[in-house]
Amino acid sequence: MNVNILLFSDFETLDAFGPVEVLGRVEKCHLRYFSTNGGLVTSSQGVSIVTDSLENVDFSGILLVPGGQGTRHLINDNTFIKKLSVIALQSQYCLTVCTGSALLAKANLLNGRKATSNKRALEWVRSVNSNVQWISCARWVVDGKFYTSSGVSAGMDMALGFISDRFGIEKATEIAQSIEYIWNSNKDNDLFAK
Amino acid sequence: MNVNILLFSDFETLDAFGPVEVLGRVEKCHLRYFSTNGGLVTSSQGVSIVTDSLENVDFSGILLVPGGQGTRHLINDNTFIKKLSVIALQSQYCLTVCTGSALLAKANLLNGRKATSNKRALEWVRSVNSNVQWISCARWVVDGKFYTSSGVSAGMDMALGFISDRFGIEKATEIAQSIEYIWNSNKDNDLFAK
Repeated sequence: MNVNILLFSDFETLDAFGPVEVLGRVEKCHLRYFSTNGGLVTSSQGVSIVTDSLENVDFSGILLVPGGQGTRHLINDNTFIKKLSVIALQSQYCLTVCTGSALLAKANLLNGRKATSNKRALEWVRSVNSNVQWISCARWVVDGKFYTSSGVSAGMDMALGFISDRFGIEKATEIAQSIEYIWNSNKDNDLFAK
Repeated sequence: MNVNILLFSDFETLDAFGPVEVLGRVEKCHLRYFSTNGGLVTSSQGVSIVTDSLENVDFSGILLVPGGQGTRHLINDNTFIKKLSVIALQSQYCLTVCTGSALLAKANLLNGRKATSNKRALEWVRSVNSNVQWISCARWVVDGKFYTSSGVSAGMDMALGFISDRFGIEKATEIAQSIEYIWNSNKDNDLFAK
C-alpha cells in the first residue's frame, strides 16, 4: 500500500502527521512525502521537510491531503489545482484533513458528493465550491473513494476509520491501542459541530 | 516561550508533532527543531526534517523529547546522554512523550521522581533506571519541571495539561477546540494501563 502525502507551504503539521502515524502502522505500507516541485516544504509550525517531486511518485495508492493556512492561497493557484486533479484521479483513495477538502473541491473532484472540513472553516470551504454537499455535522465523511475529515485531529479518527473499512475494525482498534489513542470511531459523532 | 524539540534518528513522528501542534498555538511561542549534530533527521515514519545544531539553541525555555525506536539505541550513546543532561538542566521545563522519559532517566535526571512512559514499554523503561518512581497507571505525570507522558497520542493530552498548568484551563480548552481534539484532561485517567 502506497500512501502519498502531499505537502505544501504552510500545511498544518498534525493534519499530515496524525494520519501518517496511523497509516504507517499498516504492514507493507509505504509512506512518501511529495510536493508539486519537490525540495524542502515548511509547515505552519516551522517544520521543514524533505519532499520528492510528484514526477517521481507512483499514484496508484492512497493520496493524503492535509489542510492549513496554505490552502487559502493554493485554491487560486491554477497550476497546482490542475496537478492535484491529475494525481487525485490516478489515486485509488483520496483522504483529506481539515481544509484539504477545499483543494479537491476547487479541482471539481467533489461535485455532487458529500464531504466535510474544519467546522470553523466551513463557510469559506462552501464558498470555494457550492456544488459539493458539505456536511456540517460529521467527524469524517466517506463518499466513494473520497474520505474527508473535520479539523486537524479528526484526521486520525478518519485514518482509523479508513483502516477499519479496508482491513477490519480489529486492525483499526489494534493500531489505536498501539498509539494509546482514544479513537472516536463513529464518523457521525461530531462534538465540534455548531 | 521557546519550545525546543529534540529530534533524533527513528523518533516517533506523532510523539513530536502532536505536542508541537498544541504548543504552537500559544501566542509568542517559538518552535525550534534541533538535534545533537544538526542537519537532516528522519523519523520512524520516514519524515526527513531539517534540524538546527544544539550549539545554536537557547535552552532557557521548554525542552520536548519524543520517544520511538531510536531511544533504544540512544540510551547506550554516552555522548548523547551527556549532552541531553546539560540541555535538560538548562531548560525551564522538560516534556517527554512515550520512551522519551527513558532518555531522561538514563541521564539520572528523574532519580527519586515520579514519571511514566508508554505502557507497552514500561518494563524496558524500568530496566533503564530503577531509581525512578515509574507510574504504571497515568496518562501523564508531573514532578517538578518534568512532564512525562504515556505513549504517542498521550503527548497531546500532556501538552494541553502543561498549557492548563501554565496559562489556565480556558487556554488549554480553547486550543483543544481549535484543533477539534477530544482532550483527556485528567492525567490520572489512563485507559491503556494494564
